[in-house]
Amino acid sequence: MRFLNYFLPVLKASPKEAEISSHSLMLRAALIRQQSSGIYSWLPLGKRVLDKLCKLVREEQNRAGAIEILMPTIQPASLWRESGRYDSYGKEMLRIQDRQNRDMLYGPTNEELVTDIVRSYVRSHKDLPLNLYQIQWKFRDEIRPRFGIMRAREFLMKDAYSFDCDSAGARASYNRMFVAYLRVFARIGLVAIPISADSGPIGGDMSHEFIILSQVGESSVVCDQKYFDMRIPSAEIDFSDKKKIASIVCEWTDPYAATEDMHPEALADLSARNRISARGIEVGHLFSFGTKYSNPMCARFIGIDGKNYPFFMGSYGMGLSRLVGAVVESSHDKKGIIWPKAIAPFDVGIINLKPGDVLCDRFADSCYQQLENAGIDCLLDDRNEQSGSKFATMDLIGLPLQIIIGPRNVLKGEIEIKDRKNNQGEVFSLDAMINRVTAKQ
Amino acid sequence: MRFLNYFLPVLKASPKEAEISSHSLMLRAALIRQQSSGIYSWLPLGKRVLDKLCKLVREEQNRAGAIEILMPTIQPASLWRESGRYDSYGKEMLRIQDRQNRDMLYGPTNEELVTDIVRSYVRSHKDLPLNLYQIQWKFRDEIRPRFGIMRAREFLMKDAYSFDCDSAGARASYNRMFVAYLRVFARIGLVAIPISADSGPIGGDMSHEFIILSQVGESSVVCDQKYFDMRIPSAEIDFSDKKKIASIVCEWTDPYAATEDMHPEALADLSARNRISARGIEVGHLFSFGTKYSNPMCARFIGIDGKNYPFFMGSYGMGLSRLVGAVVESSHDKKGIIWPKAIAPFDVGIINLKPGDVLCDRFADSCYQQLENAGIDCLLDDRNEQSGSKFATMDLIGLPLQIIIGPRNVLKGEIEIKDRKNNQGEVFSLDAMINRVTAKQ
Repeated sequence: MRFLNYFLPVLKASPKEAEISSHSLMLRAALIRQQSSGIYSWLPLGKRVLDKLCKLVREEQNRAGAIEILMPTIQPASLWRESGRYDSYGKEMLRIQDRQNRDMLYGPTNEELVTDIVRSYVRSHKDLPLNLYQIQWKFRDEIRPRFGIMRAREFLMKDAYSFDCDSAGARASYNRMFVAYLRVFARIGLVAIPISADSGPIGGDMSHEFIILSQVGESSVVCDQKYFDMRIPSAEIDFSDKKKIASIVCEWTDPYAATEDMHPEALADLSARNRISARGIEVGHLFSFGTKYSNPMCARFIGIDGKNYPFFMGSYGMGLSRLVGAVVESSHDKKGIIWPKAIAPFDVGIINLKPGDVLCDRFADSCYQQLENAGIDCLLDDRNEQSGSKFATMDLIGLPLQIIIGPRNVLKGEIEIKDRKNNQGEVFSLDAMINRVTAKQ
Repeated sequence: MRFLNYFLPVLKASPKEAEISSHSLMLRAALIRQQSSGIYSWLPLGKRVLDKLCKLVREEQNRAGAIEILMPTIQPASLWRESGRYDSYGKEMLRIQDRQNRDMLYGPTNEELVTDIVRSYVRSHKDLPLNLYQIQWKFRDEIRPRFGIMRAREFLMKDAYSFDCDSAGARASYNRMFVAYLRVFARIGLVAIPISADSGPIGGDMSHEFIILSQVGESSVVCDQKYFDMRIPSAEIDFSDKKKIASIVCEWTDPYAATEDMHPEALADLSARNRISARGIEVGHLFSFGTKYSNPMCARFIGIDGKNYPFFMGSYGMGLSRLVGAVVESSHDKKGIIWPKAIAPFDVGIINLKPGDVLCDRFADSCYQQLENAGIDCLLDDRNEQSGSKFATMDLIGLPLQIIIGPRNVLKGEIEIKDRKNNQGEVFSLDAMINRVTAKQ
């Protein structure tokens, strides 16, 4: 993409409504724009990040055997009356009446709706286990939205729902999602601590939150520092190997981790040397709740013995729009965002320091074309702006690699590559640069 | 994908609520499921079709220079009060109050919201033209939803919005979208007739509907049969060549086409030989409305002469969920759907007629693996079902190519390929089949 053909309205000043770095940086880098309290538009650069994250999450959900569907945002209240949650959910549920005065709602979560789908198609134990997921917008009418998309009202969530014959099967499904989550967070450069959690309004008997340590987190966490040295399950892992998957879950739930409100005695359990006390952001939540929804909603299958049983269920949420905020919060410096490669909006930023200069233009175009042809997403800054302003913009939007094309270097046939993370530059010939960049990807 | 690991709950009987073929077929092939009047879930097979269509539409929007963003589904009423549409829009608008009693709404279209985005970032004529598009769910509270996703309340729409300095620029932006639309419809095998249209609640002075002829259409159309022989603009076309783009629009608006309510005298204008009278489904709508929104919303830029001017705007909608229905409506037979390659949920369906038979399994697995490795999406029917039921399912879901692996053929080292469209089969060796199928894609 060429900057002059793009819509990337970066802001020079930090907007005053931003209380935290990620919110400020996301506004300044023109990733998002607030439309109403807790409701955001995603501008072109932000949309690209969100798309890359969605693609990565789909890969990991599919790998773990989940199947993608898409449920509507507007749901009938009748389903929530069946489960009993219509009255109990409270004011975070956005309740709506349509023109026929039917009670509807904007889904804050989808246990009821997906249970309705499965009960109407699945008859037999032979069709189980089944895990259906979607990536869809949700609405929770937070009393105090803040921190940009970190605590928004309309937010993008990946939600998966598993259906099994019995609690052992449900546990295996839960474990698969646990491992899939570990892989997602690791791939975007985050260490997420799994913490045994209260199951809140979703309900159930087993639950883990995945929490990323951050000064701006809403909860207080105590955990073993081992978590920062642990190995992530490989992409080659066999998700049908229940024992192997269970052993990974064991390994990741063995070191101590708790939110302070859950375990006020936590401090006693860890030697001071290994203890990390910090604030944390919740980015994922797993629930296993057996027959909590299938029972009242009469969602049943015929077992091996010919009798009817309710499905054993679990649900698995991951806040995707929030996760973008969490990545920015955990990966930035004074100058701007530092995207992990996996979800960078473009892989490479090319700065043409002197558009109009024949040699600079030729180098910039050749570089852009060759990298694009090699499947590398490039943003070429071809604006007539001061060098300082171009450097500042490129640092602000945080693409992993910068290629700097200036009039003095091109005379020698050279261009500079700079790593956004460590700010180190190296000078190469054009061909050597192309080889290097394409090899790195 | 292997059928046994998939969720594809096809229905044997035609559901009684379906009034038209596409609705019935989409329910039977488990593409969609109704959750409430006019509100649908997309099951795995349907989600794949929708994804492929979105990808194709993005390609054509990007090619024409539009830039993707994503706006929220819930909008503040305040923006619609600025334009004056909050009161005039009527009961199709789903109006909502949040917990703070603020008036909100579920966007039925986004002129106001996108104008708000552009007015807050774009200051100068140098930043124009600009065309921002999104693919997002919309809600219109139809009094009488029917025909499945063809006339739904919650529906997926691609909506683009152009911003120009003057009416000539706006016309060029309009023309680019016109040509992009021609390419989308052609790529999914539809002939869409552009018809000069009433601009309705969007407003403006120029408007075209794109209409697909179909017995179940909501409007009555008279058009020249030339439309069915016209050449589609090539993918290589240069969208920056305004004259070329304008000439294509001329060519496509020259033959007679009108809805009967717009031109009751239409019948007189065409010789009987060239005249087609039919019903039609609207699948896209272009509007050019100048300063209708920018004026009341004070969305202005600084022109070359240093003075302030309101943006000249247009908007361009395409009903993506509806388009899936339109494709099914126009491409099916008694046995089921016949997907055009471009949006088929899988490219190839492999039927293993005798799972458990060593040779059949070996051929089926080898075939599946080789095609998947070549980037061809396969659905392998590995169920223990009667052959007749497998054939019926494969015909129903309508994948373009079927590969049939049966115990007699494999003894001779052979497998059969069948074209869903013409039902013609040919027998090949495994290697020859792989070569043939990969070459065809």
